[in-house]
Amino acid sequence: MNQFEKQIEGVVDRILEDYRQDREIDQMDIFRHPDRDVMVELIQKLRRIIFPGYFRDKNYHIYNAKHNLAVLIEDVMFNLSNQIALVLKGNGASQMEAMEKAQSLCVAFFEQIPQIRAYVDTDLQAAYDGDPAATGMDEIIFSYPGLFAITVYRMAHVLYELGVPMLPRMMTEHAHSVTGIDIHPGATVGRYFFIDHGTGIVIGETTVIGENVKVYQGVTLGALSTRGGQSLRGKRRHPTIEDNVTIYAGASILGGDTVIGQGCVIGSNVFITESIAPGTTVTIKNQELQYRQRKS
Amino acid sequence: MNQFEKQIEGVVDRILEDYRQDREIDQMDIFRHPDRDVMVELIQKLRRIIFPGYFRDKNYHIYNAKHNLAVLIEDVMFNLSNQIALVLKGNGASQMEAMEKAQSLCVAFFEQIPQIRAYVDTDLQAAYDGDPAATGMDEIIFSYPGLFAITVYRMAHVLYELGVPMLPRMMTEHAHSVTGIDIHPGATVGRYFFIDHGTGIVIGETTVIGENVKVYQGVTLGALSTRGGQSLRGKRRHPTIEDNVTIYAGASILGGDTVIGQGCVIGSNVFITESIAPGTTVTIKNQELQYRQRKS
Amino acid sequence: MNQFEKQIEGVVDRILEDYRQDREIDQMDIFRHPDRDVMVELIQKLRRIIFPGYFRDKNYHIYNAKHNLAVLIEDVMFNLSNQIALVLKGNGASQMEAMEKAQSLCVAFFEQIPQIRAYVDTDLQAAYDGDPAATGMDEIIFSYPGLFAITVYRMAHVLYELGVPMLPRMMTEHAHSVTGIDIHPGATVGRYFFIDHGTGIVIGETTVIGENVKVYQGVTLGALSTRGGQSLRGKRRHPTIEDNVTIYAGASILGGDTVIGQGCVIGSNVFITESIAPGTTVTIKNQELQYRQRKS
Repeated sequence: MNQFEKQIEGVVDRILEDYRQDREIDQMDIFRHPDRDVMVELIQKLRRIIFPGYFRDKNYHIYNAKHNLAVLIEDVMFNLSNQIALVLKGNGASQMEAMEKAQSLCVAFFEQIPQIRAYVDTDLQAAYDGDPAATGMDEIIFSYPGLFAITVYRMAHVLYELGVPMLPRMMTEHAHSVTGIDIHPGATVGRYFFIDHGTGIVIGETTVIGENVKVYQGVTLGALSTRGGQSLRGKRRHPTIEDNVTIYAGASILGGDTVIGQGCVIGSNVFITESIAPGTTVTIKNQELQYRQRKS
Repeated sequence: MNQFEKQIEGVVDRILEDYRQDREIDQMDIFRHPDRDVMVELIQKLRRIIFPGYFRDKNYHIYNAKHNLAVLIEDVMFNLSNQIALVLKGNGASQMEAMEKAQSLCVAFFEQIPQIRAYVDTDLQAAYDGDPAATGMDEIIFSYPGLFAITVYRMAHVLYELGVPMLPRMMTEHAHSVTGIDIHPGATVGRYFFIDHGTGIVIGETTVIGENVKVYQGVTLGALSTRGGQSLRGKRRHPTIEDNVTIYAGASILGGDTVIGQGCVIGSNVFITESIAPGTTVTIKNQELQYRQRKS
Repeated sequence: MNQFEKQIEGVVDRILEDYRQDREIDQMDIFRHPDRDVMVELIQKLRRIIFPGYFRDKNYHIYNAKHNLAVLIEDVMFNLSNQIALVLKGNGASQMEAMEKAQSLCVAFFEQIPQIRAYVDTDLQAAYDGDPAATGMDEIIFSYPGLFAITVYRMAHVLYELGVPMLPRMMTEHAHSVTGIDIHPGATVGRYFFIDHGTGIVIGETTVIGENVKVYQGVTLGALSTRGGQSLRGKRRHPTIEDNVTIYAGASILGGDTVIGQGCVIGSNVFITESIAPGTTVTIKNQELQYRQRKS
């Protein structure tokens, strides 16, 4: 045993010792936790179920796409119900209770897949109608981060509404990581939702968004203050955005009592903490700029 | 068959039924679509071609790097031409036409690799010169999201100029996902382009950027309004940035008639919709702040 | 040999020829470079060492988690010391020197793992206390990008302080890619650090942050100007944030002489280049908005 190997032995012992402090980060009950990698794979498979002809399965040469999709749906149902069972067990359910409840939640989720697809189809249409750079529907399905974030949110929201713990947020945070768009699964979002570019968007847990709303990069739909911390849990903290509203890049709309009336246009970088009457266009009045000419 | 299995059967049937509505999201013609995962792998291989000594191939023990690179280039040319053929078929070309045209587009693209590398070499130099935190060229090549986004953009732009549909945008959106930097492949960007930090940058389809330009995080080079939607397709909507311009974090420069003259410095958070004369430094005049002292 | 194959041959020759220009991007000495993919895998394994019960190893069925962790720690120590040796060789050390120094740096790093875990445990607590949407510690560990970015930063900072070249920045830029949060490994950050949402945050190399600080999405802790480029290397360019400061979304605090006193609250979008006395709340005085009602 050379010196490095001896040092490794000592280091290993000290780290194992450090695990014995029983803090939150020292918890070892791995069999009561969901598996993050499995969840990411399930998101990708669910995307194939939502857009059946666009993302392929590498494992099969497909003669009959429907057979393949049937196999895929069964696979996702089994694996998703296992993950749900794990988090239910983590929350204290018995093995038996957890599995039964997980299966019924999973069936309830899949019953809503056609409804999710009906909504996502409107989001796709909204992206095409709203973006002059879009050359076709397939380009949007393959490339647009906004549509991906909305699709994952729509699935996560159904699980959130069914009361599934933890997994909905893991799903939307995966989409956040991929797209820079952070939509809490608790938010409520109507049909024909369009997000352009999207990086930096934050949509908080108790936000309510109507139909046909457009949101650009860097927009925050947030809370006025979160200094109350955990005491604010469950309270309405985020705004209401009514139908046909457009919110341009970098605007912030804050507060649980703030209602942006239907048809409003909120300009870039506008900062709003009060309600706006329907049909209003709000822009920054004048950003006083200073121009200094370089001598040359 | 237990109850869960019976329920799965019912769910599968209802989802397969839902696929029969012939909406865009119900399209099943998977063999006319490019493969997103293959495209991501091609981007990684193309990066190895651009920076031959920096990113390794795990599959070979390399005795002769050049043999390995020759094999790599052939591999990418075959696979990229297959993906191009798929999108051409998706746009209506016959199998034969698609393959022939794809191969000639692919050769035309690779003919420009030395030109792309010449540009990327200037971008690398610009990053080193512009960032006091940079400790060396290799650190920039391995770590800097800006250089990665620019490299992918430069390759995608060549494919875009050659008229290849869909794939250029898939490439830049992959880079957007990895870096938070959204450069449309249609934009035109001169040599020595430096992006620092980069998250939240948006550079629109018809933007024209000169040489030696620096852009920081959160900058938008965008359209004034996209309410025209698809009717604006192909029109000039994004600004012109001339040589030696620096644009600090969070600034927005909008509109197809907006020209930022050479040597301008655009300050943080400045919002510009009109042209600026060469050599001008533009900053926000005064952001009136309110200071409230907490009693203690 | 068909026409495409002949063209490929020509292209390969021209690209190989292009590699002979001896620019930075033409460097081929692959055995003196770290391996980016190995580093990403090491980050994931290090996360399992920091949070031993939360992220599993797919390769083992674990009967005894501690045996498994011991194996994991050994594995990471061997592989990390190899990567350190590669960058030391790249900086000119001999094979023998590089390996010896790398092993001693690696041991020094691992000696600080308990300290890193003690800090990360406070960050976890701060996230739970600060976010009304958090339903539990496990949700934060699995989902919150802020905690991930801080964890990677805390590990990278130890390596940076030990003088390991290049790898610390590769680590934080990986976290930047995953989360949109860009913390330079040179920054100094106290305990109980909370980042909410996080996309677009930039924390520069010479920033000093106290204890119990909260930072929201889009905040820049940056340099006033980087026009000096490489001549500024090593100089203090970024601000000091004292204990118990909250910095809301989109605020920018710039400059190496700027000190934000303890207990300050910096409002959304505030732009600061001068020091602020302790206990001050700074907000934008009035953003003059323009309201235009649409006729209907």
